[in-house]
Amino acid sequence: MSIYRDGMTETDQPIRRGRGRRPAAEVREQVLAAAGELLLTEGMAGFTIEKVAARAGASRMTIYKWWPSRGALALDGYATKVRTVLEFPDTGDIEADLTTQVLAFTRLLTETGAGKAIAELIGAAQTDPELASAFRERYSAPRRELAVTAMGKAIERGQLRDDIDPKVVVDQLWGACYNRLLVPDEPITDDFAKALVRNVMTGIKR
Amino acid sequence: MSIYRDGMTETDQPIRRGRGRRPAAEVREQVLAAAGELLLTEGMAGFTIEKVAARAGASRMTIYKWWPSRGALALDGYATKVRTVLEFPDTGDIEADLTTQVLAFTRLLTETGAGKAIAELIGAAQTDPELASAFRERYSAPRRELAVTAMGKAIERGQLRDDIDPKVVVDQLWGACYNRLLVPDEPITDDFAKALVRNVMTGIKR
Repeated sequence: MSIYRDGMTETDQPIRRGRGRRPAAEVREQVLAAAGELLLTEGMAGFTIEKVAARAGASRMTIYKWWPSRGALALDGYATKVRTVLEFPDTGDIEADLTTQVLAFTRLLTETGAGKAIAELIGAAQTDPELASAFRERYSAPRRELAVTAMGKAIERGQLRDDIDPKVVVDQLWGACYNRLLVPDEPITDDFAKALVRNVMTGIKR
Repeated sequence: MSIYRDGMTETDQPIRRGRGRRPAAEVREQVLAAAGELLLTEGMAGFTIEKVAARAGASRMTIYKWWPSRGALALDGYATKVRTVLEFPDTGDIEADLTTQVLAFTRLLTETGAGKAIAELIGAAQTDPELASAFRERYSAPRRELAVTAMGKAIERGQLRDDIDPKVVVDQLWGACYNRLLVPDEPITDDFAKALVRNVMTGIKR
Protein backbone atom coordinates (compact mmCIF):
# COMPACT_ATOMS: atom_id res chain seq x y z
CA MET A 1 0.00 0.00 0.00
CA SER A 2 1.53 3.33 -1.04
CA ILE A 3 1.95 6.11 1.46
CA TYR A 4 -0.68 8.07 -0.48
CA ARG A 5 -3.33 5.53 0.34
CA ASP A 6 -2.46 4.90 3.94
CA GLY A 7 -4.95 6.66 6.19
CA MET A 8 -5.87 9.21 3.54
CA THR A 9 -9.17 9.62 1.84
CA GLU A 10 -9.14 9.87 -1.92
CA THR A 11 -9.79 13.59 -1.82
CA ASP A 12 -6.70 14.17 0.30
CA GLN A 13 -4.43 12.64 -2.29
CA PRO A 14 -2.15 14.71 -4.46
CA ILE A 15 -3.22 14.71 -8.10
CA ARG A 16 -0.72 13.61 -10.75
CA ARG A 17 -0.37 16.19 -13.51
CA GLY A 18 1.89 16.70 -16.52
CA ARG A 19 3.87 19.36 -14.70
CA GLY A 20 4.01 17.40 -11.50
CA ARG A 21 1.70 16.97 -8.59
CA ARG A 22 -0.55 19.59 -7.10
CA PRO A 23 -1.74 19.05 -3.55
CA ALA A 24 -5.48 18.39 -3.34
CA ALA A 25 -6.04 21.61 -1.40
CA GLU A 26 -4.49 23.59 -4.24
CA VAL A 27 -6.59 21.85 -6.87
CA ARG A 28 -9.68 22.52 -4.79
CA GLU A 29 -8.79 26.19 -4.51
CA GLN A 30 -8.25 26.45 -8.26
CA VAL A 31 -11.53 24.71 -9.01
CA LEU A 32 -13.36 27.11 -6.67
CA ALA A 33 -11.70 30.15 -8.24
CA ALA A 34 -12.54 28.90 -11.73
CA ALA A 35 -16.15 28.21 -10.71
CA GLY A 36 -16.56 31.68 -9.18
CA GLU A 37 -15.11 33.42 -12.25
CA LEU A 38 -17.18 31.37 -14.68
CA LEU A 39 -20.38 32.08 -12.75
CA LEU A 40 -19.72 35.82 -12.63
CA THR A 41 -18.83 36.10 -16.32
CA GLU A 42 -21.32 33.70 -17.88
CA GLY A 43 -24.10 33.35 -15.32
CA MET A 44 -25.82 30.05 -14.53
CA ALA A 45 -26.82 29.60 -18.19
CA GLY A 46 -23.19 29.19 -19.23
CA PHE A 47 -22.06 27.35 -16.11
CA THR A 48 -21.01 23.73 -16.69
CA ILE A 49 -18.77 21.33 -14.78
CA GLU A 50 -16.86 20.74 -18.04
CA LYS A 51 -15.93 24.42 -18.37
CA VAL A 52 -14.88 24.67 -14.73
CA ALA A 53 -12.73 21.54 -15.14
CA ALA A 54 -11.05 22.99 -18.24
CA ARG A 55 -10.36 26.35 -16.58
CA ALA A 56 -8.93 24.74 -13.45
CA GLY A 57 -6.96 22.06 -15.27
CA ALA A 58 -8.74 19.43 -13.19
CA SER A 59 -10.65 16.35 -14.25
CA ARG A 60 -14.45 16.23 -14.20
CA MET A 61 -14.11 13.14 -12.04
CA THR A 62 -12.22 15.10 -9.39
CA ILE A 63 -14.91 17.77 -9.35
CA TYR A 64 -17.73 15.25 -9.10
CA LYS A 65 -15.93 13.64 -6.17
CA TRP A 66 -16.05 16.88 -4.19
CA TRP A 67 -19.30 18.49 -5.31
CA PRO A 68 -22.62 16.66 -5.57
CA SER A 69 -24.05 18.94 -8.27
CA ARG A 70 -23.44 21.81 -10.66
CA GLY A 71 -25.42 24.08 -8.32
CA ALA A 72 -23.33 23.16 -5.28
CA LEU A 73 -20.13 23.92 -7.21
CA ALA A 74 -21.50 27.24 -8.48
CA LEU A 75 -22.50 28.24 -4.95
CA ASP A 76 -19.16 27.33 -3.40
CA GLY A 77 -17.40 29.19 -6.23
CA TYR A 78 -19.58 32.23 -5.63
CA ALA A 79 -19.03 32.14 -1.85
CA THR A 80 -15.26 31.89 -2.36
CA LYS A 81 -15.23 34.71 -4.91
CA VAL A 82 -17.12 37.17 -2.71
CA ARG A 83 -15.71 36.15 0.68
CA THR A 84 -13.12 38.94 0.86
CA VAL A 85 -15.53 41.65 -0.28
CA LEU A 86 -18.17 40.51 2.16
CA GLU A 87 -16.01 40.13 5.25
CA PHE A 88 -17.89 41.33 8.29
CA PRO A 89 -15.94 44.13 10.00
CA ASP A 90 -15.82 44.32 13.80
CA THR A 91 -14.74 47.79 14.86
CA GLY A 92 -16.86 47.72 18.01
CA ASP A 93 -19.39 50.18 16.51
CA ILE A 94 -22.32 48.16 15.19
CA GLU A 95 -23.93 51.00 13.23
CA ALA A 96 -20.66 51.71 11.39
CA ASP A 97 -20.03 48.01 10.80
CA LEU A 98 -23.53 47.36 9.44
CA THR A 99 -23.22 50.36 7.13
CA THR A 100 -19.80 49.21 5.85
CA GLN A 101 -21.06 45.70 5.24
CA VAL A 102 -24.36 46.63 3.56
CA LEU A 103 -22.56 49.17 1.34
CA ALA A 104 -19.98 46.56 0.32
CA PHE A 105 -22.77 44.13 -0.47
CA THR A 106 -24.83 46.57 -2.56
CA ARG A 107 -21.72 47.59 -4.53
CA LEU A 108 -20.88 43.96 -5.18
CA LEU A 109 -24.41 43.49 -6.54
CA THR A 110 -24.34 46.56 -8.78
CA GLU A 111 -20.70 46.89 -9.84
CA THR A 112 -19.77 43.27 -10.61
CA GLY A 113 -21.42 40.29 -12.29
CA ALA A 114 -22.38 39.05 -8.83
CA GLY A 115 -25.83 40.65 -8.89
CA LYS A 116 -26.96 38.88 -12.03
CA ALA A 117 -25.36 35.59 -10.95
CA ILE A 118 -26.99 35.54 -7.54
CA ALA A 119 -30.37 36.61 -8.95
CA GLU A 120 -30.25 33.74 -11.43
CA LEU A 121 -29.25 31.29 -8.71
CA ILE A 122 -32.12 32.34 -6.44
CA GLY A 123 -34.46 32.32 -9.44
CA ALA A 124 -33.50 28.81 -10.51
CA ALA A 125 -33.71 27.61 -6.89
CA GLN A 126 -37.48 28.30 -6.88
CA THR A 127 -38.06 25.25 -9.09
CA ASP A 128 -34.92 23.24 -8.19
CA PRO A 129 -35.05 21.91 -4.61
CA GLU A 130 -31.47 20.61 -4.75
CA LEU A 131 -30.13 24.02 -5.77
CA ALA A 132 -32.31 25.64 -3.09
CA SER A 133 -30.74 23.45 -0.37
CA ALA A 134 -27.25 24.08 -1.73
CA PHE A 135 -27.92 27.83 -1.70
CA ARG A 136 -29.08 27.83 1.90
CA GLU A 137 -26.42 25.47 3.24
CA ARG A 138 -23.44 26.76 1.30
CA TYR A 139 -24.22 30.44 1.10
CA SER A 140 -27.16 32.16 2.76
CA ALA A 141 -27.25 30.39 6.14
CA PRO A 142 -23.51 30.88 6.90
CA ARG A 143 -23.67 34.52 5.76
CA ARG A 144 -26.79 35.14 7.87
CA GLU A 145 -24.92 33.68 10.84
CA LEU A 146 -22.07 36.20 10.50
CA ALA A 147 -24.51 39.09 10.77
CA VAL A 148 -26.43 37.51 13.66
CA THR A 149 -23.16 36.97 15.55
CA ALA A 150 -22.09 40.59 15.00
CA MET A 151 -25.44 41.86 16.28
CA GLY A 152 -25.29 39.45 19.22
CA LYS A 153 -21.98 41.00 20.27
CA ALA A 154 -23.50 44.48 19.92
CA ILE A 155 -26.36 43.46 22.20
CA GLU A 156 -23.78 42.30 24.78
CA ARG A 157 -21.93 45.63 24.42
CA GLY A 158 -25.23 47.41 25.07
CA GLN A 159 -25.41 49.01 21.61
CA LEU A 160 -28.57 47.21 20.53
CA ARG A 161 -31.77 46.50 22.48
CA ASP A 162 -31.72 43.07 24.05
CA ASP A 163 -35.34 42.31 23.12
CA ILE A 164 -34.72 42.24 19.37
CA ASP A 165 -34.25 39.20 17.14
CA PRO A 166 -31.13 39.83 15.02
CA LYS A 167 -32.38 37.30 12.45
CA VAL A 168 -35.27 39.64 11.59
CA VAL A 169 -32.83 42.52 11.12
CA VAL A 170 -30.90 40.44 8.59
CA ASP A 171 -34.03 40.35 6.40
CA GLN A 172 -34.51 44.10 6.82
CA LEU A 173 -30.95 44.91 5.68
CA TRP A 174 -29.62 42.28 3.25
CA GLY A 175 -33.08 40.88 2.45
CA ALA A 176 -34.20 44.38 1.44
CA CYS A 177 -31.26 44.51 -1.00
CA TYR A 178 -32.18 41.13 -2.44
CA ASN A 179 -35.72 42.43 -2.93
CA ARG A 180 -34.50 45.32 -5.11
CA LEU A 181 -32.18 42.93 -6.94
CA LEU A 182 -34.90 40.41 -7.75
CA VAL A 183 -37.76 42.87 -8.35
CA PRO A 184 -35.98 46.02 -9.59
CA ASP A 185 -38.78 48.57 -9.13
CA GLU A 186 -36.25 50.88 -7.52
CA PRO A 187 -32.45 51.15 -7.89
CA ILE A 188 -29.81 49.86 -5.47
CA THR A 189 -27.73 52.89 -4.50
CA ASP A 190 -25.38 54.00 -1.70
CA ASP A 191 -28.19 56.19 -0.34
CA PHE A 192 -30.45 53.15 -0.24
CA ALA A 193 -27.85 51.14 1.69
CA LYS A 194 -27.33 53.93 4.22
CA ALA A 195 -31.07 54.53 4.65
CA LEU A 196 -31.63 50.82 5.36
CA VAL A 197 -29.25 50.93 8.32
CA ARG A 198 -30.46 54.32 9.56
CA ASN A 199 -34.16 53.34 9.45
CA VAL A 200 -33.65 50.15 11.38
CA MET A 201 -31.21 51.65 13.90
CA THR A 202 -33.12 54.81 14.73
CA GLY A 203 -36.69 53.97 13.71
CA ILE A 204 -38.93 55.96 11.40
CA LYS A 205 -41.47 57.01 14.02
CA ARG A 206 -41.59 60.69 14.75
CA MET B 1 -72.20 49.87 -39.59
CA SER B 2 -73.72 48.10 -36.58
CA ILE B 3 -74.01 49.84 -33.25
CA TYR B 4 -71.48 47.38 -31.87
CA ARG B 5 -68.79 48.66 -34.21
CA ASP B 6 -69.55 52.34 -33.98
CA GLY B 7 -67.01 54.02 -31.75
CA MET B 8 -66.23 50.79 -29.90
CA THR B 9 -63.00 48.89 -29.90
CA GLU B 10 -63.17 45.18 -30.47
CA THR B 11 -62.58 44.47 -26.82
CA ASP B 12 -65.61 46.48 -25.77
CA GLN B 13 -67.95 44.32 -27.81
CA PRO B 14 -70.23 41.80 -26.19
CA ILE B 15 -69.15 38.23 -26.93
CA ARG B 16 -71.66 35.84 -28.52
CA ARG B 17 -72.00 32.59 -26.58
CA GLY B 18 -74.25 29.56 -26.71
CA ARG B 19 -76.25 30.78 -23.73
CA GLY B 20 -76.40 34.34 -24.97
CA ARG B 21 -74.04 37.27 -24.80
CA ARG B 22 -71.79 38.14 -21.92
CA PRO B 23 -70.59 41.71 -21.70
CA ALA B 24 -66.84 42.02 -22.31
CA ALA B 25 -66.26 43.25 -18.75
CA GLU B 26 -67.84 40.09 -17.39
CA VAL B 27 -65.75 37.85 -19.63
CA ARG B 28 -62.65 39.73 -18.57
CA GLU B 29 -63.54 39.25 -14.91
CA GLN B 30 -64.11 35.53 -15.41
CA VAL B 31 -60.82 35.14 -17.27
CA LEU B 32 -58.98 36.92 -14.45
CA ALA B 33 -60.66 34.78 -11.79
CA ALA B 34 -59.83 31.61 -13.73
CA ALA B 35 -56.21 32.74 -14.20
CA GLY B 36 -55.79 33.50 -10.51
CA GLU B 37 -57.26 30.17 -9.43
CA LEU B 38 -55.20 28.19 -11.94
CA LEU B 39 -51.99 29.91 -10.85
CA LEU B 40 -52.65 29.27 -7.17
CA THR B 41 -53.56 25.62 -7.65
CA GLU B 42 -51.08 24.55 -10.33
CA GLY B 43 -48.28 27.13 -10.15
CA MET B 44 -46.56 28.57 -13.21
CA ALA B 45 -45.58 25.07 -14.41
CA GLY B 46 -49.22 24.14 -15.02
CA PHE B 47 -50.35 27.58 -16.16
CA THR B 48 -51.41 27.76 -19.82
CA ILE B 49 -53.63 30.15 -21.78
CA GLU B 50 -55.56 27.08 -23.02
CA LYS B 51 -56.48 25.99 -19.50
CA VAL B 52 -57.52 29.52 -18.49
CA ALA B 53 -59.68 29.77 -21.63
CA ALA B 54 -61.37 26.45 -20.84
CA ARG B 55 -62.05 27.40 -17.20
CA ALA B 56 -63.46 30.81 -18.14
CA GLY B 57 -65.45 29.58 -21.13
CA ALA B 58 -63.66 32.14 -23.29
CA SER B 59 -61.75 31.72 -26.53
CA ARG B 60 -57.96 31.77 -26.65
CA MET B 61 -58.29 34.52 -29.25
CA THR B 62 -60.16 36.74 -26.78
CA ILE B 63 -57.47 36.21 -24.15
CA TYR B 64 -54.66 36.95 -26.59
CA LYS B 65 -56.43 40.18 -27.58
CA TRP B 66 -56.30 41.43 -23.98
CA TRP B 67 -53.05 39.99 -22.63
CA PRO B 68 -49.74 40.07 -24.50
CA SER B 69 -48.32 36.98 -22.82
CA ARG B 70 -48.94 34.06 -20.49
CA GLY B 71 -46.93 35.89 -17.79
CA ALA B 72 -49.02 39.06 -18.07
CA LEU B 73 -52.23 37.02 -17.71
CA ALA B 74 -50.85 35.10 -14.71
CA LEU B 75 -49.82 38.35 -13.03
CA ASP B 76 -53.18 40.06 -13.59
CA GLY B 77 -54.93 36.93 -12.34
CA TYR B 78 -52.75 36.89 -9.24
CA ALA B 79 -53.27 40.60 -8.57
CA THR B 80 -57.05 40.16 -8.89
CA LYS B 81 -57.08 37.10 -6.65
CA VAL B 82 -55.17 38.74 -3.80
CA ARG B 83 -56.57 42.28 -4.09
CA THR B 84 -59.15 41.89 -1.32
CA VAL B 85 -56.74 40.21 1.08
CA LEU B 86 -54.07 42.82 0.45
CA GLU B 87 -56.22 45.93 0.72
CA PHE B 88 -54.33 48.65 2.52
CA PRO B 89 -56.23 49.76 5.62
CA ASP B 90 -56.33 53.45 6.58
CA THR B 91 -57.39 53.79 10.21
CA GLY B 92 -55.24 56.87 10.76
CA ASP B 93 -52.71 54.89 12.84
CA ILE B 94 -49.80 53.98 10.58
CA GLU B 95 -48.19 51.47 12.94
CA ALA B 96 -51.46 49.55 13.29
CA ASP B 97 -52.11 49.74 9.54
CA LEU B 98 -48.63 48.52 8.61
CA THR B 99 -48.93 45.64 11.08
CA THR B 100 -52.36 44.65 9.72
CA GLN B 101 -51.12 44.77 6.15
CA VAL B 102 -47.84 42.91 6.69
CA LEU B 103 -49.63 40.24 8.75
CA ALA B 104 -52.23 39.78 5.99
CA PHE B 105 -49.46 39.49 3.43
CA THR B 106 -47.41 36.93 5.39
CA ARG B 107 -50.52 34.83 6.02
CA LEU B 108 -51.39 34.92 2.33
CA LEU B 109 -47.87 33.66 1.57
CA THR B 110 -47.94 30.85 4.12
CA GLU B 111 -51.58 29.77 4.25
CA THR B 112 -52.53 29.75 0.55
CA GLY B 113 -50.92 28.69 -2.72
CA ALA B 114 -49.94 32.34 -3.26
CA GLY B 115 -46.47 31.95 -1.72
CA LYS B 116 -45.39 29.21 -4.10
CA ALA B 117 -46.99 30.95 -7.08
CA ILE B 118 -45.34 34.30 -6.45
CA ALA B 119 -41.96 32.66 -5.70
CA GLU B 120 -42.11 30.83 -9.02
CA LEU B 121 -43.10 34.01 -10.87
CA ILE B 122 -40.21 36.00 -9.39
CA GLY B 123 -37.88 33.05 -10.02
CA ALA B 124 -38.86 32.73 -13.68
CA ALA B 125 -38.65 36.52 -14.11
CA GLN B 126 -34.88 36.37 -13.47
CA THR B 127 -34.32 34.84 -16.89
CA ASP B 128 -37.47 36.13 -18.66
CA PRO B 129 -37.33 39.92 -19.23
CA GLU B 130 -40.92 40.05 -20.52
CA LEU B 131 -42.23 38.37 -17.37
CA ALA B 132 -40.03 40.66 -15.26
CA SER B 133 -41.60 43.77 -16.84
CA ALA B 134 -45.07 42.34 -16.48
CA PHE B 135 -44.40 41.60 -12.81
CA ARG B 136 -43.24 45.11 -12.08
CA GLU B 137 -45.90 46.93 -14.10
CA ARG B 138 -48.87 44.78 -13.21
CA TYR B 139 -48.06 43.82 -9.66
CA SER B 140 -45.12 45.08 -7.65
CA ALA B 141 -45.02 48.75 -8.69
CA PRO B 142 -48.75 49.42 -8.03
CA ARG B 143 -48.59 47.56 -4.70
CA ARG B 144 -45.44 49.46 -3.68
CA GLU B 145 -47.31 52.68 -4.50
CA LEU B 146 -50.15 51.85 -2.09
CA ALA B 147 -47.69 51.51 0.80
CA VAL B 148 -45.76 54.65 -0.18
CA THR B 149 -49.02 56.63 -0.29
CA ALA B 150 -50.07 55.37 3.13
CA MET B 151 -46.71 56.34 4.62
CA GLY B 152 -46.84 59.71 2.87
CA LYS B 153 -50.14 60.43 4.62
CA ALA B 154 -48.61 59.37 7.94
CA ILE B 155 -45.73 61.81 7.39
CA GLU B 156 -48.29 64.57 6.81
CA ARG B 157 -50.12 63.56 9.98
CA GLY B 158 -46.82 63.82 11.84
CA GLN B 159 -46.65 60.09 12.70
CA LEU B 160 -43.50 59.38 10.71
CA ARG B 161 -40.31 61.42 10.39
CA ASP B 162 -40.35 63.67 7.33
CA ASP B 163 -36.76 62.89 6.37
CA ILE B 164 -37.40 59.22 5.56
CA ASP B 165 -37.89 57.67 2.13
CA PRO B 166 -41.02 55.49 2.34
CA LYS B 167 -39.80 53.48 -0.68
CA VAL B 168 -36.92 52.15 1.42
CA VAL B 169 -39.33 51.10 4.18
CA VAL B 170 -41.29 49.06 1.62
CA ASP B 171 -38.18 46.92 1.06
CA GLN B 172 -37.70 46.56 4.83
CA LEU B 173 -41.25 45.31 5.40
CA TRP B 174 -42.59 43.48 2.34
CA GLY B 175 -39.14 42.96 0.79
CA ALA B 176 -38.02 41.25 3.99
CA CYS B 177 -40.98 38.86 3.66
CA TYR B 178 -40.08 38.11 0.03
CA ASN B 179 -36.54 37.35 1.20
CA ARG B 180 -37.76 34.64 3.59
CA LEU B 181 -40.11 33.35 0.89
CA LEU B 182 -37.39 33.05 -1.75
CA VAL B 183 -34.53 31.95 0.52
CA PRO B 184 -36.29 30.12 3.35
CA ASP B 185 -33.49 30.03 5.92
CA GLU B 186 -35.99 31.16 8.53
CA PRO B 187 -39.78 30.74 8.74
CA ILE B 188 -42.43 33.39 7.98
CA THR B 189 -44.50 33.73 11.16
CA ASP B 190 -46.81 36.25 12.82
CA ASP B 191 -43.99 37.13 15.23
CA PHE B 192 -41.73 37.84 12.27
CA ALA B 193 -44.34 40.15 10.70
CA LYS B 194 -44.83 42.06 13.95
CA ALA B 195 -41.08 42.33 14.61
CA LEU B 196 -40.54 43.78 11.12
CA VAL B 197 -42.89 46.68 11.85
CA ARG B 198 -41.67 47.18 15.41
CA ASN B 199 -37.97 47.26 14.42
CA VAL B 200 -38.48 49.80 11.68
CA MET B 201 -40.90 51.98 13.67
CA THR B 202 -38.95 52.16 16.91
CA GLY B 203 -35.41 51.29 15.86
CA ILE B 204 -33.16 48.62 17.33
CA LYS B 205 -30.60 50.95 18.89
CA ARG B 206 -30.45 50.92 22.66
